[in-house]
Amino acid sequence: MASSTSSAPSMAERLQPRVDACNEMTALNYAKYVPFIVDGQPVGVLQPWFAEDLEKACGSETLRRDSNGAVTFVSSLDTADKRSEAIMPGLEKLRDQGVITGWRDEIFPVTMGYGVPPLFRIERAAASLLGVRAYGVHVNGFVTLPDGEKELWVGKRAKNKQTFPSKLDHLVAGGLPDGMPPYECVIKECAEEASVPESLARNAKAVGLVSYTMNYKGCCKRDVLFCYDLELPVDFVPTPDDGEVESFTRYKISEVLEIMATTEDFKENCCLVIIDFAVRHGFITPDEPGYVKLVQSLRVGNA
Amino acid sequence: MASSTSSAPSMAERLQPRVDACNEMTALNYAKYVPFIVDGQPVGVLQPWFAEDLEKACGSETLRRDSNGAVTFVSSLDTADKRSEAIMPGLEKLRDQGVITGWRDEIFPVTMGYGVPPLFRIERAAASLLGVRAYGVHVNGFVTLPDGEKELWVGKRAKNKQTFPSKLDHLVAGGLPDGMPPYECVIKECAEEASVPESLARNAKAVGLVSYTMNYKGCCKRDVLFCYDLELPVDFVPTPDDGEVESFTRYKISEVLEIMATTEDFKENCCLVIIDFAVRHGFITPDEPGYVKLVQSLRVGNA
Repeated sequence: MASSTSSAPSMAERLQPRVDACNEMTALNYAKYVPFIVDGQPVGVLQPWFAEDLEKACGSETLRRDSNGAVTFVSSLDTADKRSEAIMPGLEKLRDQGVITGWRDEIFPVTMGYGVPPLFRIERAAASLLGVRAYGVHVNGFVTLPDGEKELWVGKRAKNKQTFPSKLDHLVAGGLPDGMPPYECVIKECAEEASVPESLARNAKAVGLVSYTMNYKGCCKRDVLFCYDLELPVDFVPTPDDGEVESFTRYKISEVLEIMATTEDFKENCCLVIIDFAVRHGFITPDEPGYVKLVQSLRVGNA
Repeated sequence: MASSTSSAPSMAERLQPRVDACNEMTALNYAKYVPFIVDGQPVGVLQPWFAEDLEKACGSETLRRDSNGAVTFVSSLDTADKRSEAIMPGLEKLRDQGVITGWRDEIFPVTMGYGVPPLFRIERAAASLLGVRAYGVHVNGFVTLPDGEKELWVGKRAKNKQTFPSKLDHLVAGGLPDGMPPYECVIKECAEEASVPESLARNAKAVGLVSYTMNYKGCCKRDVLFCYDLELPVDFVPTPDDGEVESFTRYKISEVLEIMATTEDFKENCCLVIIDFAVRHGFITPDEPGYVKLVQSLRVGNA
């Protein structure tokens, strides 16, 4: 059994805080939130102040509180289309009031599980405030050097990006829009964010998922990220296209791990996907203390 | 988003029962068991009849019930060595009575987490009956054919093996003995179970873990398996050495998945490790319904 008596913490132990930062939500935390119940199913959790704002903005012909204080749709709104149509004006009002920020004109399905029909649809920017489950794709773009060493392409987010400006990021990543299969989303994001041609992007390989429930500005961010490995030719250089990324730099895997262990430079949820990469490729092993805890905590959030 | 409306179930959905079979223990199930508390920490769960047998066999100078009915050591047994020494004669008595079967003369550490010092040590065969956490290594031995297709080496357990006779199995697998680092255990098991020379076994790559809490003959089998990928030369043929395995056969990954989806021929916990392999190597993808549930449930047990 691996010894935990050595004095210097292992890389697994040094990376644990990065994973913990994505899992600040505990069962106890949830008690502070207002459930959003649709068709009898708990699809979201709202901060109490946002539950009130949302009710006010949507009006009593759309939303009401049930006997337990949970937010629900009025019973006549009994289809996904009716609910989506009814809630939209309220969300737009909250956007105009500056409550919902980062509006993207991107439709996002609210579901009880990946692949099941949505209970309603919302603007993507409202997902965190509604505390609903979201799904995304994250692509680790890497090269294998002639000596066998692996290097990872790391993006630096634009200074003026609405979310997480100037943070380090993957080659590409993105939320899954309504109705788009994950692999198609990977191909699209590869083109948009890093100018990776489809012929190369098609080598992206699905390799698993990470999940977490994160405290994001007081909201319950409940995400599942589908992880992809994309091995790129050594002479290929990704270039930013849609302005989301400022630059791309290639780092040795050991350098990336060291940056994550010593700084908060990486966008928080990217750390999970990169640690998953390091685990799958044997850069972190069960022989070092802290491995079990680290690997277990990569999939803590419920899907 | 992947559609769940297609009529034929996906491979992910067809494999789900294999994972569920390793996760029959739920929080409710636990209430039926008697906790084993050592040094204030819940290290095991016993079936009520076994708690009584164990108490009787060990005697009141070794074990007692606390005010909640949990089994504990008497307070004077305050070190791992004292507890291990005190409980051993009782375990041997239960072996002689035929209660503990499959005795292996293999010392096994009882801990609250991997890598932390043991609270006491027991004979390995008693681990399931005590409901303590156990750790093992499982190695997927595979080859890559010239056309890029991957094939997996599958062992068939000997008919006369104490546990899971005639079931299909990995190239090699084994429980982690006290004090042995996982990688060393891999090298040892590779030699013993499949005659893989150390020069080849050293290519085994740590790639993650699966965990589960299984109902094994009424016991709570709480396991964490460290997963390894071992790519072997196409012309290498593993051969059984210690008699645990009867024969080795190479299957296409798609064939292995089909066997798992349609039969219970594989040893139950091997299914999790092979599904993890299929997920990491892109043989199952998020584009098929049931992916999220399948992948999430590979690490359900607590470590």
